[in-house]
Amino acid sequence: MKIKTAPITLVNGLFADDVAANNRGLAYGDGVFETILVRGSRPLWLDDHLQRLAAGAKQLSIPCDIATIKRDCIQLIAVFDAPMAVLKIVLTRGASLRGYTPHPASPDRIVSIAAYTPNRANWNSGIALALCQTQLSSQTRLAGIKHLNRLEQVLAAEELLRRGYQEGLMMLRGSVIEGSRSNVFCVVDGKLSTPSLSHCGVNGIMRQHILKHADELGIASTVREFGVSLLQRAEEVFVCNSVIGIWPVTKIECMHKQIGPISHLLQREFDTYFYV
Amino acid sequence: MKIKTAPITLVNGLFADDVAANNRGLAYGDGVFETILVRGSRPLWLDDHLQRLAAGAKQLSIPCDIATIKRDCIQLIAVFDAPMAVLKIVLTRGASLRGYTPHPASPDRIVSIAAYTPNRANWNSGIALALCQTQLSSQTRLAGIKHLNRLEQVLAAEELLRRGYQEGLMMLRGSVIEGSRSNVFCVVDGKLSTPSLSHCGVNGIMRQHILKHADELGIASTVREFGVSLLQRAEEVFVCNSVIGIWPVTKIECMHKQIGPISHLLQREFDTYFYV
Repeated sequence: MKIKTAPITLVNGLFADDVAANNRGLAYGDGVFETILVRGSRPLWLDDHLQRLAAGAKQLSIPCDIATIKRDCIQLIAVFDAPMAVLKIVLTRGASLRGYTPHPASPDRIVSIAAYTPNRANWNSGIALALCQTQLSSQTRLAGIKHLNRLEQVLAAEELLRRGYQEGLMMLRGSVIEGSRSNVFCVVDGKLSTPSLSHCGVNGIMRQHILKHADELGIASTVREFGVSLLQRAEEVFVCNSVIGIWPVTKIECMHKQIGPISHLLQREFDTYFYV
Repeated sequence: MKIKTAPITLVNGLFADDVAANNRGLAYGDGVFETILVRGSRPLWLDDHLQRLAAGAKQLSIPCDIATIKRDCIQLIAVFDAPMAVLKIVLTRGASLRGYTPHPASPDRIVSIAAYTPNRANWNSGIALALCQTQLSSQTRLAGIKHLNRLEQVLAAEELLRRGYQEGLMMLRGSVIEGSRSNVFCVVDGKLSTPSLSHCGVNGIMRQHILKHADELGIASTVREFGVSLLQRAEEVFVCNSVIGIWPVTKIECMHKQIGPISHLLQREFDTYFYV
């Protein structure tokens, strides 16, 4: 196969643009997904992403063959030519007859790759955050996992588009949980805090790496419930995910924030992962 | 086209078995759906289903061309030969690049038909209901509509399969909301009650028709919040949807129930819609 620059997709290991119309991913959002940054043909934290995919699939009782999915990823990266790209993995429970009941089926894996242009301006200068009107809902059986039921994020993204924001925070009954497509951290009295995800939210790979690096750098961090008042008190706020990296926050609605030393320190730690 | 008996599908008006792998229905469950009973080539309450589809699509800002979807339904019914069948309509926001933001796109309509065998035994003799461990989550922006984010129902259906139940009730913070694939009614002191769906749940077409007919029959009915204790007090309980009709409930976990006069009266009203 020749080198490609337009998006390409492997459906169950074969180059294809279609999936079965009776796929349960389409019918019920019955599956999980991952998006992975690829820089110079190297996927960032691929094994972490595959582990999370497998954990989410297990939570939904969907069989997940990590080795095969990894092979798909490597095959796509090998034939795709772009300085930076994003791999997307979707794993669904496969096709089925009508009805919610998840009878044993052969899961479908849909792996695709497309070119990606990082936003260095946001990394350097920060972004303004909205507080989304769309609330998250509480579902402990799905909390943390990156499943395909994403209507709340779509509704939030529609709001953000309408209001001219690049990102916004989503709440559950007064508690800040995450951004529409990122996790959120704040720094209060020099200490890092990020919301607990026990009721909802995606346990981001970047979030996990930040918590780990903070520990190694001697920055205290806690995972806990908090509301907007803590963001008001915070010296620093940033959002993160494993594709964008770390975007400092300079404004949340009408609250102004400075880009501070801990944001800078963490950005320096991860800079080489996200930029050439 | 010759008469078919195996399931057939129209994707955007053309006979097809596949949809685009980058469809937002698959990526995010970004769409709505309907299932419609077809008896002797006559779809039951088709216009009501199309109205609800359009209302759900509007809530998600997805364009919905009812006339075209209706044409697809009629085309499938005309070429499909079975005494009873179920039509399924899925309307998604269409294909898009990666990312939650719902940029204007051409929506995809996937309409399919398959043979259906009604369960007369359940209609006549009733069923046992479980109380599902899987809770519903509260999301006012999606309450009532039949959207494609159905993981909670899939998890509940998995529970029911494991425990050997045909249907189960789903709750939100102590309030009964609906069955995993049905709405629920109970009769207390001769009066019909069905749960409020302001926080979650699907506003079933059968539920709407039951409320309307009850009114015409002089049976008092209320839509309100209630918990399991009301089910305990209830003289009668039944579940319903527009494919199964009305299934009386003879047991909820260890609580025994009788099939009573109001269930029988309503079943007689609707019998000709569901059975030959």
